[in-house]
Amino acid sequence: MKLFRYVANDDIIPGVLIDGVHYSLEGFFDELGPDTGAFDLDETFFDINGLEVLQNYLDEFGTTELVAIEGEIEYGPCVARPSKIICVGLNYADHARETGAEIPKEPILFFKATSALAGPNDDVVIPKNSQKTDWEVEMAVIISQEASYVSEEEAMEYVGGYAVMNDLSEREFQLERGGQWDKGKGCDTFGPLGPYLVTADEVPDPHNLPLWLKVNGQTFQNSNTNQLVFNVPQLVSYISQFMTLLPGDVISTGTPPGVGLGMKPPVYLKPGDVMELGIDGLGVQRQVAVAWEA
Amino acid sequence: MKLFRYVANDDIIPGVLIDGVHYSLEGFFDELGPDTGAFDLDETFFDINGLEVLQNYLDEFGTTELVAIEGEIEYGPCVARPSKIICVGLNYADHARETGAEIPKEPILFFKATSALAGPNDDVVIPKNSQKTDWEVEMAVIISQEASYVSEEEAMEYVGGYAVMNDLSEREFQLERGGQWDKGKGCDTFGPLGPYLVTADEVPDPHNLPLWLKVNGQTFQNSNTNQLVFNVPQLVSYISQFMTLLPGDVISTGTPPGVGLGMKPPVYLKPGDVMELGIDGLGVQRQVAVAWEA
Repeated sequence: MKLFRYVANDDIIPGVLIDGVHYSLEGFFDELGPDTGAFDLDETFFDINGLEVLQNYLDEFGTTELVAIEGEIEYGPCVARPSKIICVGLNYADHARETGAEIPKEPILFFKATSALAGPNDDVVIPKNSQKTDWEVEMAVIISQEASYVSEEEAMEYVGGYAVMNDLSEREFQLERGGQWDKGKGCDTFGPLGPYLVTADEVPDPHNLPLWLKVNGQTFQNSNTNQLVFNVPQLVSYISQFMTLLPGDVISTGTPPGVGLGMKPPVYLKPGDVMELGIDGLGVQRQVAVAWEA
Repeated sequence: MKLFRYVANDDIIPGVLIDGVHYSLEGFFDELGPDTGAFDLDETFFDINGLEVLQNYLDEFGTTELVAIEGEIEYGPCVARPSKIICVGLNYADHARETGAEIPKEPILFFKATSALAGPNDDVVIPKNSQKTDWEVEMAVIISQEASYVSEEEAMEYVGGYAVMNDLSEREFQLERGGQWDKGKGCDTFGPLGPYLVTADEVPDPHNLPLWLKVNGQTFQNSNTNQLVFNVPQLVSYISQFMTLLPGDVISTGTPPGVGLGMKPPVYLKPGDVMELGIDGLGVQRQVAVAWEA
């Protein structure tokens, strides 16, 4: 399934893409919610095996019970606020080669504030006083069930699906303002996620997906998830040794070469710049960078 | 007000401490929830000005509408899962003096996984393969309304109250496993918070509160919040420059000297160790360290 969330009447409503048509899942959730507490693509939904419940529903009824969405779709983030967004640093071999950095012996982890989540095509706000706002196309993994101390062998059972993430980063805040990366990773709008949560059954090999990012039409990032240093089961297993992954949690698996910080000289976003990015099979994002306004 | 959350019938229910008696707020929330969506001490509650609504209710009815809780109280974390827990590193002047570390020029920020939240007296689980689980008594600040780019002068308007936090830390995971501190800060049970959310009106000066921590009866930490390098309004204002603080978000303001890592030689928790910690006016926590079990 290709699931998404869209803005309608000041609310965000789940939907599903079938044969190129965007259908609302409002009716499905109206039925599912009262008994289960699952009204959205959130922790509760994944926890009650919502992906399977929804798949069974679609298998039984097809699109007969669904209403197609009219007009242009304004996507929200493809999952509702997770308990955490765990990001992985320096996880592309080609990136390491390019920069001469050593390949990490074990995954580097940091968090992105969940308040940074945004729709895939929302404006990206360059923070007040920011000079170094940068892009990072990444494959995100959506966790479908609670995972604690899982082995690599069983790790894929905990993966609900995949999505495109732009792990926006303010490099001065991240690297020059006192120690920990989190400070430059969680600014508002710094987490466009989607458009689609593509369920794992539709991604037979998450380790061979081309991914790319352009700014103003110029390609800056162009790689493949086959360059991941630590692959999806390794990451899920590894992270689950340090904290319990909850249903709906997001792991952003790291970015390939071509970020603005890596250019000589560095290139950073300015108001009006247009980012386009995508991963084959997972969809495409498009964001305009805008200046912060009070 | 001194608010708390307690475990009853597999649920966690808010309560209030008045004149030494613990009252359930189940009835209050049963009335408040359906119209507002606020069923707990969570983001929605703070966002609708729940603290003021509750204070007005108590002013009007006193305890006449409340039911005292019978038996021993099992506290949960004093707020429901926030969007984020932001922690501050190296923020006590006496700690800096002791270790010879330079006082940071600006606050060091990192995140604690919200899945680490625990009740103030819950067992602390020493993670599998952990050799260096350590304690940190801290004053936590609970945000009451959305705060973005707020000035220091107005910052206290965004503070709903205070609580005791034990910012448990696995030092090997934090410092020796590849880069960022978050890896050692978010293990399950590493965030005991409470027992009470003490509202700001009852804490006239949050910058003059003794705080202390004992392990097995021996005092390890013993300081005062007057040693904070960056005080509460400075922290709220500072953090709000990097991300929007949401209602119910938690800022843990840093720890004074006396953590296990700072001992010569270092001292770490082993199963059976008992931590007791407290902050004058905010309450006392007590945790037993236990070994991880499958």
